[in-house]
Amino acid sequence: MALHHRAPDLKNDTLLRALARQPTDHTPIWLMRQAGRYLPEYNATRAKAGSFLKLAKTPDLATEVTLQPLERFPLDAAILFSDILTVPDAMGLGLHFAEGEGPRFQHPVRDERDVAELVVPDMSDLRYVMDAVRQIRRELRERVPLIGFSGSPFTLACYMIEGSGSDDWRTVKIMRHARPDLLHRILDVNARAVTAYLKAQIAAGAQVAMIFDTWGGMLAHEDYLPFSLDYARGIVKQLSVPTILFTKGGNPWLAEIAASGVAAMGLDWTTDPRRAREIAGDRVALQGNLDPLALFAPEKAVREAARRVLDAFGPQPGHIFNLGHGIQPKTPIESVAALVDEVRAYSSGCRKRSAGS
Amino acid sequence: MALHHRAPDLKNDTLLRALARQPTDHTPIWLMRQAGRYLPEYNATRAKAGSFLKLAKTPDLATEVTLQPLERFPLDAAILFSDILTVPDAMGLGLHFAEGEGPRFQHPVRDERDVAELVVPDMSDLRYVMDAVRQIRRELRERVPLIGFSGSPFTLACYMIEGSGSDDWRTVKIMRHARPDLLHRILDVNARAVTAYLKAQIAAGAQVAMIFDTWGGMLAHEDYLPFSLDYARGIVKQLSVPTILFTKGGNPWLAEIAASGVAAMGLDWTTDPRRAREIAGDRVALQGNLDPLALFAPEKAVREAARRVLDAFGPQPGHIFNLGHGIQPKTPIESVAALVDEVRAYSSGCRKRSAGS
Repeated sequence: MALHHRAPDLKNDTLLRALARQPTDHTPIWLMRQAGRYLPEYNATRAKAGSFLKLAKTPDLATEVTLQPLERFPLDAAILFSDILTVPDAMGLGLHFAEGEGPRFQHPVRDERDVAELVVPDMSDLRYVMDAVRQIRRELRERVPLIGFSGSPFTLACYMIEGSGSDDWRTVKIMRHARPDLLHRILDVNARAVTAYLKAQIAAGAQVAMIFDTWGGMLAHEDYLPFSLDYARGIVKQLSVPTILFTKGGNPWLAEIAASGVAAMGLDWTTDPRRAREIAGDRVALQGNLDPLALFAPEKAVREAARRVLDAFGPQPGHIFNLGHGIQPKTPIESVAALVDEVRAYSSGCRKRSAGS
Repeated sequence: MALHHRAPDLKNDTLLRALARQPTDHTPIWLMRQAGRYLPEYNATRAKAGSFLKLAKTPDLATEVTLQPLERFPLDAAILFSDILTVPDAMGLGLHFAEGEGPRFQHPVRDERDVAELVVPDMSDLRYVMDAVRQIRRELRERVPLIGFSGSPFTLACYMIEGSGSDDWRTVKIMRHARPDLLHRILDVNARAVTAYLKAQIAAGAQVAMIFDTWGGMLAHEDYLPFSLDYARGIVKQLSVPTILFTKGGNPWLAEIAASGVAAMGLDWTTDPRRAREIAGDRVALQGNLDPLALFAPEKAVREAARRVLDAFGPQPGHIFNLGHGIQPKTPIESVAALVDEVRAYSSGCRKRSAGS
C-alpha cells in the first residue's frame, strides 16, 4: 500500500495528503452517498435511466451522477457511483430491485450446492464499472481524486445468503453457527472477487479504494475478526492505493481495524473521535463522523455540529471529514452547502490560528 | 443503592449475589423477553387476552405469562411482564398497537405546546403494574427474585416524539439539533416519571430494577451522556434495590455506564466481555451477552456458544448470563433448554474445577 500515492497533476490533492497524514490547508470533506437522492439532478438522471441498476450499469449516466455533487459543492473527492452488489450480481445471483424495496437476489446462496457453484466472476462482466471509472477520471480533469469502492466480503455475503436486506440477518447468523465452514467458503470467494474488482478499478483510474463493511458491526464480538476483518485485511494488502475501511457499528474493534493495514478507518457517529485518535496514533487517518441526521437541523445548528466534530478530531493531520453513514435521501441541500462551507472555513481558520500562535 | 439487597427467604438468591459480585455456585441466567412469543403457552395466554396491551394490563394474565418460562426452565430470575411504554401511555399519549406493527402514539410530543402539557402521571393510573408485581411475588413463593423494569427516559422520549418505532429516529434527532431545550424538558418529565414508577414497583415487591435504554446507542457520541445516561443516573441514585442498565449499542460508553452507580451493566452481543470486565473492575457486575440468533443453531453449537460466552466473562464473581438482546419470537424452545442447562452445568463445573485446583 502506497502511503502517499503520488498524483502530481491533481489540482486538489487534500484527500490524498490527509490519507498520508500530511498537513493540509483545510480538512478535506466528501460525503458517503454524495451522489444520491437528496439531489434533484440525481433524481432526474435516475428517472432518465429508468431504474437504479440501469443507472449504475450505464457509464455515461454513472459518470453524470458521480460529478453532480462536485458541481454544487467544493468537495475534495469524487466517489464512483455504483451499487454495492455489482460483484454478486456478476456471480449470476440475479440482482434486482423491487419498487420501493431494497435489493433482492433471485438465487441466494444457502447450501452446499449453492456454495459449490460460486466462482469469482470474470471482470469483463463488470466492464461497465471500469468504463465508468475511466470516463469519470477523464471528465474530472484532475480536479479531485476519484475513490473506487466495493462492499466487504462479509457485507456481500450477508445479502447473498439472506437474499435481501434484513433486520437481524437471521439466515447469515444461522449459517455462521450451524455451518461456519460454508460461510468461510463464501467469504473466500468474495475476498478473491473483491480483490480482483478493486484492482481492476485501480487499473482503470481509481486513486483511493474504499471498502464498505456495512454489516460487520452486527457480528458477535468474537466473530468480527474471523468472519469480516480478516478477509478485508487480505484485500487491503494487495492494493496499490490508500484504502479506507468503514465498518458501521465498528466501535468494538477500532484497535484491530487500525492495525489492519488500511490508510484510514471510517467512523460512524457513535464513535468517540478522541478515543479513535488515541488508538490510531499517527499510523492511520480517520474519516467521519457527523450524524447524517444532524443535517436536518437549521443552518446554525449544522455549522455548530460541524465545528464540534472538527474539534473532537483535533488539529493533527489525518482527518477526512465525512458523515458517520450515507447521506439521507431527504437531506436539505442548504444543509449540505452549509456543512461543506463550514468545514472548509473553520478547519482552515484553525490551521491559520495555530500557525500564528 | 443497596449492594446486596437482603432477601433471607429467597430459595435461589444467585442473581442477587451475582449483582453484589459475591461468589455463587453457578452463573445465574435469565433471558430478556423470556416471557415471549417463542413460548406456545405465552401465545395461548395472549390469544385469550385478545391483545398485547390487554395482556399487559390484566394482572392475572401478566402474572401467568411472567411465570411461564420458570415452569419450563430453571431460570434464576423472573422479570415482570409488561410493556416498555406503560409510562407514556399513562401520560395520556394514546398508546395503541396496529396488528402486525409496533407501538404507536395517537398524540406524539413534538412542539412547545405538547411539551407544556406533559406531566408525570399519577401512579394510580399504573396500578395494574403494581398489582401484577404483587401477584407475581405471591405466586413466585420466593423461588427466585423478581426484576421490575422501565424504559429509560431517552428511550421513552424516542417513541413519544417519533410517535412510533423508527429506523433512524429522524424526528428525535431533528429536535435534538433544532430544539435541544424541548428534548431536555421531555427527558426531565420522563426521568421523574420513571423514578416514581420504579419506586412504586419496588414498593410493590420488585427486588431488582432494570432500565432498558434500547435506543440510547443510536445517539452521536457526545450526545449519549447529556441526553441519555445523565437522566438514567439520576434515577438509579434514588432506588433502594440493585439496578441493571442495558444500553443496546452502548459499547462506546462502557466506562461512563460503569461509573453511573448501577449494580450491573447489560452488554449487547457486539461487546467484548474481557474489555467490559477491565472497565468494570470489581465495582460493577456484568450481564450478557450471547447473540440471540445463536439460538437458531443446532444444540451442539448452542452449547459451544454458551461456553464461549462464559469463558469470555471469566471466573470472577459478578456475571449474570443473558442474551445480548431480547429473545427472538421464533427461537426453538429446545435451544433455550440447552442454553440454560449448559450455563448451569458448565459454570458450576468451572467453579468446582477452580476450587479443586
